[in-house]
Amino acid sequence: MRKYLAEFLGTLLFMLFAGASIIYLTAFNFAQIFDIMLTFGLALMTSMFIWGPWANGGHFNPAVSIGAAITGQITWKTCLGYTVAQLLGGITGLGFTIAGINGLSNIQKSASQNISTTQILSSLHPTSSDLLAPYTFGVELVLTFFLVLVILLAIQEHPRLSPVIAGTFLTLTMFTAFPLSGGALNPVRVIASIFYTSNQAGSFIWIYLAAQLLAAVLAGGVLRIFYRPTQA
Amino acid sequence: MRKYLAEFLGTLLFMLFAGASIIYLTAFNFAQIFDIMLTFGLALMTSMFIWGPWANGGHFNPAVSIGAAITGQITWKTCLGYTVAQLLGGITGLGFTIAGINGLSNIQKSASQNISTTQILSSLHPTSSDLLAPYTFGVELVLTFFLVLVILLAIQEHPRLSPVIAGTFLTLTMFTAFPLSGGALNPVRVIASIFYTSNQAGSFIWIYLAAQLLAAVLAGGVLRIFYRPTQA
Amino acid sequence: MRKYLAEFLGTLLFMLFAGASIIYLTAFNFAQIFDIMLTFGLALMTSMFIWGPWANGGHFNPAVSIGAAITGQITWKTCLGYTVAQLLGGITGLGFTIAGINGLSNIQKSASQNISTTQILSSLHPTSSDLLAPYTFGVELVLTFFLVLVILLAIQEHPRLSPVIAGTFLTLTMFTAFPLSGGALNPVRVIASIFYTSNQAGSFIWIYLAAQLLAAVLAGGVLRIFYRPTQA
Amino acid sequence: MRKYLAEFLGTLLFMLFAGASIIYLTAFNFAQIFDIMLTFGLALMTSMFIWGPWANGGHFNPAVSIGAAITGQITWKTCLGYTVAQLLGGITGLGFTIAGINGLSNIQKSASQNISTTQILSSLHPTSSDLLAPYTFGVELVLTFFLVLVILLAIQEHPRLSPVIAGTFLTLTMFTAFPLSGGALNPVRVIASIFYTSNQAGSFIWIYLAAQLLAAVLAGGVLRIFYRPTQA
Repeated sequence: MRKYLAEFLGTLLFMLFAGASIIYLTAFNFAQIFDIMLTFGLALMTSMFIWGPWANGGHFNPAVSIGAAITGQITWKTCLGYTVAQLLGGITGLGFTIAGINGLSNIQKSASQNISTTQILSSLHPTSSDLLAPYTFGVELVLTFFLVLVILLAIQEHPRLSPVIAGTFLTLTMFTAFPLSGGALNPVRVIASIFYTSNQAGSFIWIYLAAQLLAAVLAGGVLRIFYRPTQA
Repeated sequence: MRKYLAEFLGTLLFMLFAGASIIYLTAFNFAQIFDIMLTFGLALMTSMFIWGPWANGGHFNPAVSIGAAITGQITWKTCLGYTVAQLLGGITGLGFTIAGINGLSNIQKSASQNISTTQILSSLHPTSSDLLAPYTFGVELVLTFFLVLVILLAIQEHPRLSPVIAGTFLTLTMFTAFPLSGGALNPVRVIASIFYTSNQAGSFIWIYLAAQLLAAVLAGGVLRIFYRPTQA
Repeated sequence: MRKYLAEFLGTLLFMLFAGASIIYLTAFNFAQIFDIMLTFGLALMTSMFIWGPWANGGHFNPAVSIGAAITGQITWKTCLGYTVAQLLGGITGLGFTIAGINGLSNIQKSASQNISTTQILSSLHPTSSDLLAPYTFGVELVLTFFLVLVILLAIQEHPRLSPVIAGTFLTLTMFTAFPLSGGALNPVRVIASIFYTSNQAGSFIWIYLAAQLLAAVLAGGVLRIFYRPTQA
Repeated sequence: MRKYLAEFLGTLLFMLFAGASIIYLTAFNFAQIFDIMLTFGLALMTSMFIWGPWANGGHFNPAVSIGAAITGQITWKTCLGYTVAQLLGGITGLGFTIAGINGLSNIQKSASQNISTTQILSSLHPTSSDLLAPYTFGVELVLTFFLVLVILLAIQEHPRLSPVIAGTFLTLTMFTAFPLSGGALNPVRVIASIFYTSNQAGSFIWIYLAAQLLAAVLAGGVLRIFYRPTQA
């Protein structure tokens, strides 16, 4: 039975991404987004390769750490420590990026483009609206669920190749989510963005965090109940 | 003799993709299609890594499962089960994508683009016409044949790296096929698309399915007759 | 001493590609070429993975086979057989691509683009002119030399990863050569293109073939004289 | 404690690159830069695969060699030899590229573009200004620091996969740095560019070299003090 479930889940995810790709290319013109989302995946890949061996594989996402705590891969105490470290790391990393923006602003001044620092900063955080809130919630829930599920399975079953698998899967989920919900899929991305920006969309932040937390609980729960390692 | 055949087949496929790439770049301007087709390959790669170990390597394509049944890698009963699971998975996955479209439609309303949901949906399924039907059949036949051949060889000969090889090869075949036949190369992609769209091109669907089925039979037959594993 | 030579050669190739990339991006606008050239590298990669184990690693390029014969990796008889198989394979593969062009031509008719089949075919073969002949010769010589050198070293030293290394290096050399010489780097690409096209640039074909042959002899000779395998 | 530090550093780098990517895509339109920066990463990857085994992993960057000398991975005598070899290699490699430019110039003449050789050459070297000098220094310092740190860790901890990790990380740092400081991150890139170009930005070259040298010293020092190999 497990083999039919495997074909079902694999084809489900394949068609989810394939369908989104075709729509983005044909109806809209979103091909260039893929390049940027590759950056997310490759950044996760290098972080997991370099720092992962010292930290249960490398989560860099509180949703993944919460899922790992539910499955029993890490303790809740470690999960809390990871979440704090992730938030501090995310805020510091984004701080470096934002410190570079003034340079960018100056460059564009001479290039007679006119994009204010406020505009640049506001591009950072995923946004929603009264109308779109239910869609945002659904997109973040479904894709964060699969993201946590796949990353935890990759760390458990493919310890050496997990950075490649997790990075590639993040690229696919970010690419699919970006035009729909802004593609957060990670509480750090939401909270670090709020930390630096005057957040006009602030009242919708709870949608992102609630969807991601629920996804982490569901993915961790599914793995705890149904998953048995193939080799003990 | 086998080594000369190997050089022949390798160079054949190399020039097939290289020729198409040069024409797409130079005569037309299709470079951005490659980004989208990379999504297909990477989605197949992650699905094969995560779910493949539980399901004979991971097919996610009835044409590959039929080819595997002909070679004897799986039983016909398993092949039937895989095909049903793949269809259910494909329909569910595309359902998630389509559920997100309303969000996209709302976004574009505020962005003063004007693309109807019908237009978006119709972009999903490969299309043909009376005039193009023979080309469509030929393109789907040749490329699905090589796709099934390469994926089955990859699963058999390179069990650990098969997700990378199969994913990359799907990217190349999709990139080549997309401007010619819409690039289905997988009955699930055809059937799941019909499931959700009012299908104006419905009378041509049999062309895709017939070409893919014939390709699966031919690839499976060629492997059954000529192929001997290099290490038993 | 070998370690300093290694740093010299590695940095030489790094700066050669890096310099070309920056010029292509900044002075011109050639970024999209990279996507297409990735297709060449990935096609070589999958061909080497699937067919390489049966054919001394997989050359798919007479220049590489001639280099391999000079180093003694293969016999001259095998080299001749490979070259014939490569030419037949290349002509067959490009034949499939060209058979699909009429479909493309029909598609563009309805899309009110107007590119004749002759124009499409002529985009296939690398071209030169009286004025540019010396540059063409130099570019093909230098880049084919490094290509043969790196592929033969990859097959010898990294038997399992050689498809990834050779494919990536082909992407880099094709990307660099394409705007300068059309990027042939392989006699099959030149000869298969002539086979199908009315070749206005025919009188310059010898420049490509002579440069590639000389590069193969030089690369094979350098390896025969200086190279000793790190592990026998 | 080390595991929390690992999550902190991994998330820091992830958000640094993710933040920059989102800003580049959304506020500006820099997606195509990623393609070019992939060339840098892939060139480093192939160089490390082919030449690395003969030269302590393959640095191709004096900043990395200085960092390696500080950690004790190589002697200072070897570091000096590497730096000389790297400079000679970089100047030779860029020489090949520049020798090809005349061909490019001729091509564009017929294509009625009008970009002078001087303009092409001046695109090669990173540039700054009185106003931007502090930003340039900061960007080169922070990103070269992480680049040296990650490459040295990759060579030490992942000897077989280090080319993939180092190449990918270079792509990410170059992509992030290019719009801010021109993205040198390597003294060879600065010095080889000056060697061939009439350098209008010459008085700012010391900013790049000072930032990169300080970054190398800091990264090497941090590793020497805090890092212990996971397996001796």
